[in-house]
Amino acid sequence: MTTKYVTFPDLQPSEPQGSDLLAAERAQATFRPNDLTDLIYGAEQMNKYARVQEIIEADPAFDKSAHYYLGREDLYKASLRKEKRLAKLMRKHGWGIDELQMAEEILDIPSQFMAHRGMFVPSLMSQADDEQKEAFLKPALRYQIIGCYAQTELGHGSNVQGLETTATYIPETDEFEINSPYLTAAKWWVGALGITSNYAVVMARLISNGKDHGPHLFVVQLRDLKTHKPLPGRTIGDIGPKLGYNSIDNGFLLLNKIRIPRFNMLSKYAQVEKGTGRYTKPPNARLAYGTMVLMRVYFVLAARRALARAATISIRYSAIRRQFVDPENPKKWNNGRVIESPVIDYVIQQYRLFPVLAQAYACHFAGLALKDLYETYIKQSEKGDFSLLAYLHASSSGLKSLTTTMAVTALEDCRLACGGHGYSKFSGFVTYSQNYAPNSTWEGDNYLLTQQVARYLFKTYRQLISSAPLTATVDPTVTYLQRYLNNPKCTCPAKSPEDFRKPEIQLQAFGHRAAYMIAAAVDQLDNHGRTWNSLLVDIAAISRAHCQYVLVCNFIEALQPKSNSQYDKFFKEKPEIQSVLTTLRDLFALHTMQKEFGEFLSSGYLSPTQSTMVKDQVLALLKEVRPNAVALVDSFRFSDYTLQSALGRYDGKVYETLCEWASREPLNSVTVDVNLGSDTLFREERVISKL
Amino acid sequence: MTTKYVTFPDLQPSEPQGSDLLAAERAQATFRPNDLTDLIYGAEQMNKYARVQEIIEADPAFDKSAHYYLGREDLYKASLRKEKRLAKLMRKHGWGIDELQMAEEILDIPSQFMAHRGMFVPSLMSQADDEQKEAFLKPALRYQIIGCYAQTELGHGSNVQGLETTATYIPETDEFEINSPYLTAAKWWVGALGITSNYAVVMARLISNGKDHGPHLFVVQLRDLKTHKPLPGRTIGDIGPKLGYNSIDNGFLLLNKIRIPRFNMLSKYAQVEKGTGRYTKPPNARLAYGTMVLMRVYFVLAARRALARAATISIRYSAIRRQFVDPENPKKWNNGRVIESPVIDYVIQQYRLFPVLAQAYACHFAGLALKDLYETYIKQSEKGDFSLLAYLHASSSGLKSLTTTMAVTALEDCRLACGGHGYSKFSGFVTYSQNYAPNSTWEGDNYLLTQQVARYLFKTYRQLISSAPLTATVDPTVTYLQRYLNNPKCTCPAKSPEDFRKPEIQLQAFGHRAAYMIAAAVDQLDNHGRTWNSLLVDIAAISRAHCQYVLVCNFIEALQPKSNSQYDKFFKEKPEIQSVLTTLRDLFALHTMQKEFGEFLSSGYLSPTQSTMVKDQVLALLKEVRPNAVALVDSFRFSDYTLQSALGRYDGKVYETLCEWASREPLNSVTVDVNLGSDTLFREERVISKL
Repeated sequence: MTTKYVTFPDLQPSEPQGSDLLAAERAQATFRPNDLTDLIYGAEQMNKYARVQEIIEADPAFDKSAHYYLGREDLYKASLRKEKRLAKLMRKHGWGIDELQMAEEILDIPSQFMAHRGMFVPSLMSQADDEQKEAFLKPALRYQIIGCYAQTELGHGSNVQGLETTATYIPETDEFEINSPYLTAAKWWVGALGITSNYAVVMARLISNGKDHGPHLFVVQLRDLKTHKPLPGRTIGDIGPKLGYNSIDNGFLLLNKIRIPRFNMLSKYAQVEKGTGRYTKPPNARLAYGTMVLMRVYFVLAARRALARAATISIRYSAIRRQFVDPENPKKWNNGRVIESPVIDYVIQQYRLFPVLAQAYACHFAGLALKDLYETYIKQSEKGDFSLLAYLHASSSGLKSLTTTMAVTALEDCRLACGGHGYSKFSGFVTYSQNYAPNSTWEGDNYLLTQQVARYLFKTYRQLISSAPLTATVDPTVTYLQRYLNNPKCTCPAKSPEDFRKPEIQLQAFGHRAAYMIAAAVDQLDNHGRTWNSLLVDIAAISRAHCQYVLVCNFIEALQPKSNSQYDKFFKEKPEIQSVLTTLRDLFALHTMQKEFGEFLSSGYLSPTQSTMVKDQVLALLKEVRPNAVALVDSFRFSDYTLQSALGRYDGKVYETLCEWASREPLNSVTVDVNLGSDTLFREERVISKL
Repeated sequence: MTTKYVTFPDLQPSEPQGSDLLAAERAQATFRPNDLTDLIYGAEQMNKYARVQEIIEADPAFDKSAHYYLGREDLYKASLRKEKRLAKLMRKHGWGIDELQMAEEILDIPSQFMAHRGMFVPSLMSQADDEQKEAFLKPALRYQIIGCYAQTELGHGSNVQGLETTATYIPETDEFEINSPYLTAAKWWVGALGITSNYAVVMARLISNGKDHGPHLFVVQLRDLKTHKPLPGRTIGDIGPKLGYNSIDNGFLLLNKIRIPRFNMLSKYAQVEKGTGRYTKPPNARLAYGTMVLMRVYFVLAARRALARAATISIRYSAIRRQFVDPENPKKWNNGRVIESPVIDYVIQQYRLFPVLAQAYACHFAGLALKDLYETYIKQSEKGDFSLLAYLHASSSGLKSLTTTMAVTALEDCRLACGGHGYSKFSGFVTYSQNYAPNSTWEGDNYLLTQQVARYLFKTYRQLISSAPLTATVDPTVTYLQRYLNNPKCTCPAKSPEDFRKPEIQLQAFGHRAAYMIAAAVDQLDNHGRTWNSLLVDIAAISRAHCQYVLVCNFIEALQPKSNSQYDKFFKEKPEIQSVLTTLRDLFALHTMQKEFGEFLSSGYLSPTQSTMVKDQVLALLKEVRPNAVALVDSFRFSDYTLQSALGRYDGKVYETLCEWASREPLNSVTVDVNLGSDTLFREERVISKL
């Protein structure tokens, strides 16, 4: 625990207390949060999670209470201490990937060894041949060498084919000469490269016999394993402070014609022959796509977590924070006394927060559906059937783009909905959002990805209108495109606001909108000579439309489980859970529709009158969610340790915690000299003891 | 200048160089940026600005080169050093408010004395009587005492009437006893209260003879002027780390039944009589509204600056950053060699960035129009005519809300449009956006403010439909409401995409949409028993619709200046400036319309076919802006010193600067110990020299 610099007087917040307000919220829920938690994570996983959590939260190496006050160097140190400890705990408790992921979620601190575990080791596993595994993978798994994955350059990110670092085969010595010919060829942004790693897998253009074979992977030792000093020819360092991730040393690397043995080119798939320099191409890249899809499943589930966290903090705090008396509906507390209304009672606040809750659950079900589909694909691909890949690649790209953007937006919206205190790091929003932010950009920029989605959708549409054989025979895209083609001029059949709660009405509306936009774009491309570039704005919208369809579709399917499935039994036993989730599904579908009215109306599918019905129905749904709002966020079961939020605490002690944490701000240990005539700034210049 | 820890090899970025790319952009502009700069700021102001800038940039006390690397305490110190120097320079050069504002814009570092100069001193000026001015204002102006403005509390922000701190008059001693009865009564967020100020103006509920007269202002000494130690009964400190503003010590203050003389209640308007405790109310509050309006004019102009800055960095960098070859339109460089396309050539990038440029100019003209109107109001109010106040208050509230939200959004969108490097602090986005962020919340939360706007609009509408006498006889609201009432069912007369460039088509569309929404809401309130709370979502949308109308209207009017006015002459001499601004006006109007299609379509005013025309026209406008994009941002004339951006530098040396700044990252001075068996983290534990 950190030092306390100020002692607060012994006072309570004014009545009613946060804990009492949250208790009243919890009492009015229509379901038991524990039941929903079991549905979300599964009871068995929750037990495992609880065991990992207990170990983490009890270990002093994982104490986070000082983190908000730390500068970069101290943050790096705290994080490295945690990493070393975690690596030891993994051995001690025999933790596998599952527990590691749980531990990292609970800890919620970007880690120096993530690049090692998540990029360096996996590239060796998948791309090294057996001898290379012996040489590099074995010591890596024992943490005898610590590696990173050096791909991105100062001048090139998404366009991997344009990377400038070269690896030229030198037959005379059977070596590669690796070189950074320009400043823009500097490897940049590489996680844990700055000061941590002593090895790297470096991506460089393979040149042999004067021919450029494009980017390949090479193992390069960066630093002396004893002194940790950079080896000759390597210019290495940290790239400087960032929006977030400041505990991590994202680094740069310039290689000045260094030599490595031919052995260091990862050679499971592509090889260079000794002496002749003859190059053997790798087989096709379908396998790599599979890994990419799996990564994107995780992005969708991580977006769910981010959305759930944003909702947890902002909804709990909104039940406690009171502002103004609502003259038309004054809030009364226990003794009948009128109090200022908790902001959660204002419809605008509900409109800002509850859809985030609905989005969290939408992403949950979409993530699970994507994971299932991925597992089906893996089974099929082992039998040589790759038919699912195109749809899977497109939808996972689009969902990564849509859901991470959704989460980034929600984090900021929910932070703002906490008013002034949202600006404090103690809100729990600031550091978390800053660390979440790169999700919009890395592993496929969210705008670029939409082009992958559109390519697949346009191809499928063209196959349908030309009656060419379909690449994928059954996927939701084909369903909604076919439906559209059967009747492009059809309009929404809803006659009353309540009609919009019917799943088929929702699904048809989302399907028609996506199909209409796809048809219009293909027409422009194929019949009006429009360039791809000129359609990029539509393409981004089309990807969003398609993926919103997928989210709605998955949400609907999850709530209509197959007879006798696990879910089906669960819902039969706990109909109140199915009911509250149905409300959230409707809110997700109709709020999304409302946000995108322009697209639903401009196709002519939705009428102005119907748009008013949707608007009204959204308000009705907010009212239905209201009594369950706190219970719904409780169900995600974030611990106070993970949240590190004064506003989102489970016990509602918001103001007590803000004071407690403020009393530990190190700036409170200094005495300023405000005399203009003096050049002194602090009255006693102190050497701040580093934490 | 800071220490360099890494030496980069002597390499250039790959061709073409950023400076050459920017030169080519500048060569294709259709106008001279200096001409536009003169129009924006006025030539005389620019000269003054240049003189201030020269002094600032040459002074070592204002060196910012280390700021990105600093933790909180060092940032505080650097900022305080700057503040003391600035206060001295103001005396030396005889700078007034104008130069001070310029200096603060150029420096762009939140300042400890801002609360003193901008809140403490002005409250004394406006609310202190003559004796109080002698006692408090005089030493404040000489910086003998440093003050802050303690209003917001832990539990109360926007609802000033709900503040909990009390000031009870004690007739026996002719004193006030000021007390914080609850933890939630702690003053919180108060700028420069934490460790800097030794005085405060404290807002507390005045209680006399058992009667609560609501919030009033009291001068409270906080600290000993010699030792700077808190006086008895004051619990003071810094509230901890924040998203931004970390150079500032936002503070807390709890007062434990401290006594101050009756003299310390600011008594120009309200008084408490000696002995009897008899209370005299202040006259009405119209004057206070005037100050609030002026503040909001500054918010609109500051939003313009934020938008212009976001556009400057992202547009310059987009002209330099190259990504992929566009197969349909390959970019060729000087020697005919195909290069990867600068991202500014991708339509989606233009769509993300150019509207921000248009928004910056829209806010510029709206800010000036609001300022003019404010000055007219002040003149009229001196003659007892307050008829403009209601409109002015509503529009300035709404414009503050709309334009600051617009700027916050643009900063993030433009940062993301810079790809990976946008995440680095060196982008120039991070710190600036973090410091800009509170604009959404302070001085009126952006959602709360929309209720002020709607109240005025509903009142005006009700006056029109009941033929009651109008509060304001001529304002744009009356114009568009009247037009709507004459023909509520009218539709947009545009027949071709080009028709949407006609100012009257634009204005009528925005007016009809706002009026339709106002009419619907009033109908719900007055005829269907809907509560105010249940309409808050519509109310937020109505405020936005009204203010977008105002922005379009002001932009149109600025480009159709009165004959022989200064602007008119300027445009006659420089028709190319009028032409490029007209393109931006059209882009602003039509892009805004496109973003809000839902509202234009659901009223039935715009048809689906017309919405396609608008979409097409937006693309045509992006193409027209393209050659002038860099020149348009150059015209805002941000110096590299102010921007502190490696990406947005005037000379285009993006990659050189990223490397230069990375070489100075202090983390590069440490050597890590990654051996898991060792408990050491850094190989040689260093005492970091404080900067």
